[in-house]
Amino acid sequence: MACELCEDDGGIVIWRNDDCRVVHVDKPGYPGFCRAIWNKHVREMTDLTMDERARFMRVVFTVEAALRELLHPDKVNLASLGNATPHLHWHVIPRFVDDLHFPNPIWGARTRQSAPATHAGADIAAALATRLSRL
Amino acid sequence: MACELCEDDGGIVIWRNDDCRVVHVDKPGYPGFCRAIWNKHVREMTDLTMDERARFMRVVFTVEAALRELLHPDKVNLASLGNATPHLHWHVIPRFVDDLHFPNPIWGARTRQSAPATHAGADIAAALATRLSRL
Repeated sequence: MACELCEDDGGIVIWRNDDCRVVHVDKPGYPGFCRAIWNKHVREMTDLTMDERARFMRVVFTVEAALRELLHPDKVNLASLGNATPHLHWHVIPRFVDDLHFPNPIWGARTRQSAPATHAGADIAAALATRLSRL
Repeated sequence: MACELCEDDGGIVIWRNDDCRVVHVDKPGYPGFCRAIWNKHVREMTDLTMDERARFMRVVFTVEAALRELLHPDKVNLASLGNATPHLHWHVIPRFVDDLHFPNPIWGARTRQSAPATHAGADIAAALATRLSRL
């Protein structure tokens, strides 16, 4: 079966290396939402070697740290799900107490109709790329 | 404010060390659902040192590997959310194509009314504890 993350980048690429890429997710109400996507088609973290797992998590945590510094979210949500798209990827989602679903996961019920636009950083992608390039 | 994961184990403890504990989550329809909970009250993965992050992820991935071996899930979902309980913990959730929410995250809409009971391992907790004790 065709895999959308094999055929396509899966978003606007902020940074990439030989292992993986980080893309910006354009989801209204969720500034800074990123995905880190393993380049090869692998299903689970435990399908990677120990070294690959460590390298991938280092990317995920670098994105988390950068988003915290840039956006000061109330919480960061990290998730590797992939039920619909079983190609290994991590969601890195800055969460705010007044966002559309808080305190629910973004896959749960909405708790409000609109989210303030004030959390959007001016150029999150560029700032993230700078931090990732130091890896 | 009182934190339920500071005051309580947060489930039936399968295994623990100085860093963290692994508990079994009793959620009907989700055999093998575990949480790995950091012992100290910390909000985010990037509040841990690099070494602590690596040790914690090693526990999470050991749980994932054990659950795959025991239950042969169609997918494993990993998530660190903590919006309601901002005390660092990971959900490790074996997913099956015929479970209650598949392909949605377990926090999303239900896709069926009942899940087959056939995935339940006889003594998942004991088997997990054995594998974790080798860490």
